[in-house]
Order: sequence, then structure tokens, then C-alpha cells
Amino acid sequence: MSREAFVNGEYTDYSKSYVHIEDRGYQFADGVYEVFAILDSKIVDFEGHIKRLYRSLKELRINSPIQKKSYKFHIKEIIKRNIIKDGNVYLQITRGVASRDFKFPENSKSSIVIIGKNIPSNYYNDNFSKGINVKTTKDIRWKRVDIKSLNLLPPVLAKQYAVDNNCAEAWLLDEEGYITEGSSSNAWIVKNKTVITRPTSFSILNGITRTTLIKSLMKVGYKLAERKFNLRDIKDADEAFITSATQFVMPVTKVNNIKIGNGNVGEFGQKDMPLTL
Amino acid sequence: MSREAFVNGEYTDYSKSYVHIEDRGYQFADGVYEVFAILDSKIVDFEGHIKRLYRSLKELRINSPIQKKSYKFHIKEIIKRNIIKDGNVYLQITRGVASRDFKFPENSKSSIVIIGKNIPSNYYNDNFSKGINVKTTKDIRWKRVDIKSLNLLPPVLAKQYAVDNNCAEAWLLDEEGYITEGSSSNAWIVKNKTVITRPTSFSILNGITRTTLIKSLMKVGYKLAERKFNLRDIKDADEAFITSATQFVMPVTKVNNIKIGNGNVGEFGQKDMPLTL
Repeated sequence: MSREAFVNGEYTDYSKSYVHIEDRGYQFADGVYEVFAILDSKIVDFEGHIKRLYRSLKELRINSPIQKKSYKFHIKEIIKRNIIKDGNVYLQITRGVASRDFKFPENSKSSIVIIGKNIPSNYYNDNFSKGINVKTTKDIRWKRVDIKSLNLLPPVLAKQYAVDNNCAEAWLLDEEGYITEGSSSNAWIVKNKTVITRPTSFSILNGITRTTLIKSLMKVGYKLAERKFNLRDIKDADEAFITSATQFVMPVTKVNNIKIGNGNVGEFGQKDMPLTL
Repeated sequence: MSREAFVNGEYTDYSKSYVHIEDRGYQFADGVYEVFAILDSKIVDFEGHIKRLYRSLKELRINSPIQKKSYKFHIKEIIKRNIIKDGNVYLQITRGVASRDFKFPENSKSSIVIIGKNIPSNYYNDNFSKGINVKTTKDIRWKRVDIKSLNLLPPVLAKQYAVDNNCAEAWLLDEEGYITEGSSSNAWIVKNKTVITRPTSFSILNGITRTTLIKSLMKVGYKLAERKFNLRDIKDADEAFITSATQFVMPVTKVNNIKIGNGNVGEFGQKDMPLTL
């Protein structure tokens, strides 16, 4: 079987799936995206992702290239055509093709690309049981990261900085030394049965898994505190973890090589949290 | 004649010039670019642009996809094949194609695209003689805009904000109210025969035209002051202008609808500055 992608209205062989060189996504990062987790061939939190996608499009004044009701059809089609069991579907929309000019083109047609892939079920298992290491670095991103845009070079550099330091994720520090979030995840600590994460603002992405987790906390006997936290709070925490659509709840056992709690995955990290509502 | 582009080693019909959907330029803005002004079919400031291109590549740890000596050949070829007299050549390099993951891929091959276009010689003339209007807006870009990267969504939004306000350019305000630069140009004011522009740092792009102009100032009897300036300084200025590789020295006659000087193009703006060294 060969992989297939959905590109501007057509299903194409993945290896021959192309966009024009003057697509504004390629020249200006002028577009948005979502990553849908797929579990047992089903889309996790579909409605939450679509709602956020439409918010991102509206903030950037980009038109949806397809009807709202068509998203589910095409994502399901990608799952089917690529026989995805557990993995993810990536969907991106840009302002389309136009002769290069910073201002919005008058008559461009939005571009859409959807691709999917299987991720072996053991891919994260080691990390889930051992936890991951995190490295902190300055948050040098633009000031509207609440929009899930393609303007992703800073998190790319942050993630690579983490990898260079034998860590799986970077946590980003604002100018006052508080964590905003991870390079591609939300950041959390746990202290005395209270789960702490930064409140939503223009400085973090309003994660779908973040929202789902918050709604589930009470059920497992934990409280929520939406507040900023810094490195001192991290050192003092019982546990730490990240959330993202593809990694769900992933325990963090070291930050900047300092053990969190006793350095093992803690009580909260071992819980089997409900991941969909 | 049909337009031609240079894409990853081949000259292709512009309308059929494509890159793969998983090129990191498309998904992550993970790449850099340069725009070369072309005058009378010749490349303006070639060496300056190539030097800056290599600096940008080095900062992002992206390999040059072609030998350094080959850039001139391909740019000249684009000029020739597209019969460019006055216009520009746009060149972009990305980290290449890889399965989507924030961290750098281990074995990707950098992508390169070169395109060129003629710009009618009267395109800027009206603006040169009348001057342009500028609108200020917050600088919400990332903190390494000294790297000429594809992470360009914030300047796209700033430029469109200017256009929405019947202005040709946006000037970006840092958190203290000082101008950093334009959305796609450097910003300048003139006061008492002194030309004032912000010093280079991570907060502005080190413009090639900026450098060229600084070297030419003495010849026309003006002094240079590299310092920050704010809206009060602008209101008090004799003249204002922007510089960019494609617009050279473009007079600014209004900022936020307030006239600069007497509201006409001033003495400095009327000078025929040497544009190449």
C-alpha cells in the first residue's frame, strides 16, 4: 500500500504530493494547522480541534477551503486510505498561492493539506513508564501563540536545543522566569494534590488535551490551580508532566537535570486519565 | 515566453513549480530567504546578500544546498530565462523534506527555490515623488528577527494592518514605544542634517540597503546617529523614510496621519543616493 495525502481537493500519492512554490505557507508561514490523535482508527476530540481551527482561521482572516461538515469526511478518508490504527492526522490550511507580497492577496484560494501516519504503539510506552527529561530555554516566540499558526521556527529551535541536551522537550521561560509552555505541549506541575498550569492568554496555546484534562481532574480527586510557575516551583513540586494531542499526559521526571519529586513517575503520572470527554 | 523557476536543481515552468507538502518550509517556516533587487538586468549588492544568507543559514544550522560560487550563476540564469530588466529575484532555502517532527531531521537535504519577476519602472515612481504613509503597530515578532527567516506571519499581519489603514508600510513599536523597523523595511528619520536609525541587534534585520546608505551619507553631507527613536521623535523630525532592497530609499510623509516636516518629500528624500557601493 502506498501512502495517500489530501491536497487541495484531491487524494494524491504521498510521495508525489506537492504545493506550489508561491504558496503563502511556504514563503510567509501564513497558515494554521491542527494535529488530531487517532486511537483505534477513531479521531480523538474532533470537535475541540475543529473549533480551535476555525478560531485560528478567523484570527488570521483566512477562509476555510472546504465546508465545515467536510473536515470529518476527509480526515476519516485519510485514516481509511492509510489504514491508520493508532497515530495522528495532520491538517494544515494556508492563505493560498499568490505572487509574493506581504499584504494579503486579493483573490487567493486557501490551500489545504491532510496527511496521516501510524505511530507504533510502543513509541511512547518507554517514556510513559520512565518519564521524560525537560530542558528550559527562553521563550523567543511571537506574541500570538494562542493562534495555532505555521510560524513555528522558534519552537523548532527550542525542541532541537532540548534534544541537543538529551531532553525530549523544552519548557519556555518568559521574561520574568515563568514557564509559558513546552515547545509543542502544555506544561504542568503537581503539588499537594493540586495540578498547576499557566492560565490561557496570548502567551500559550489553549491545548485540547489541556482542556480535557482540566475537566477530568475532579474525578480523580485532584484540584486545579491556573497560575504561573517558575523554576523554584518546579524544584518544589511533587510531580511534573506535559500534555499534547499526540502524547496525552506524559510524565516529566527531570527538569534541567534536577529530579522532580523522587525522580520517578509519581501518583498522578501513573493514573489512567480519561482522554476524551 | 513562460516564466521559469529554479527548484531543487532544476529549471521548471513557474506554473508547474512545486515543493513537497512535508518540506519544513511549509510546515515550520524552517528556512531563510533573500530578495535581490535587479536593475538593468544586474544584481544589486550581490555580495552583501550572500554574506547575510550564509549568516542566516549558520544561525539555523541549515546547510547550503548548492556551492557558494553557484548562487550567482543561478540568479543570473533566472534573470536571463525570465528576461528581467528591473525587478527582483527571490531566493529561499529550507531544511528540506522530512516526516513532520519539530526537531531537526537527521538526513534531510536542504531545499532551494529561486524565482524572479519584472517590476514596471513606474511601480514605485508615484511613491518616490509623493512619499508614502506609515501606520504604527505593536512589534509582536519573535526575538531573532536579525535572522532573515521564513517566520513571517507577524510582519504579514502588520503590513495588512497598514493597508487596512490606507498606509503602505507599518512601523513596529517595541514595548517601550520605540520603533524597531518596518514590516519589510528599515525605518529612518532625519533631524538637522542627521539621519537617525535604530542600531542593529536581535530586534531588527541588518538591511543591506541600510548598510549601503550609511556608507553613502557622508558623501551627501549628512551625519549618522544610530539610536532608538519614538513617536515624539518622529513628530519632531524634518523627514522620514524607509529602506529596503526593493524600494531603496522611499520617503515617508505621514506617520499615523501626522505630517512629517511640511508633509512633502524633503531635501534628503529628493537626493539621488548611490544605491550600490
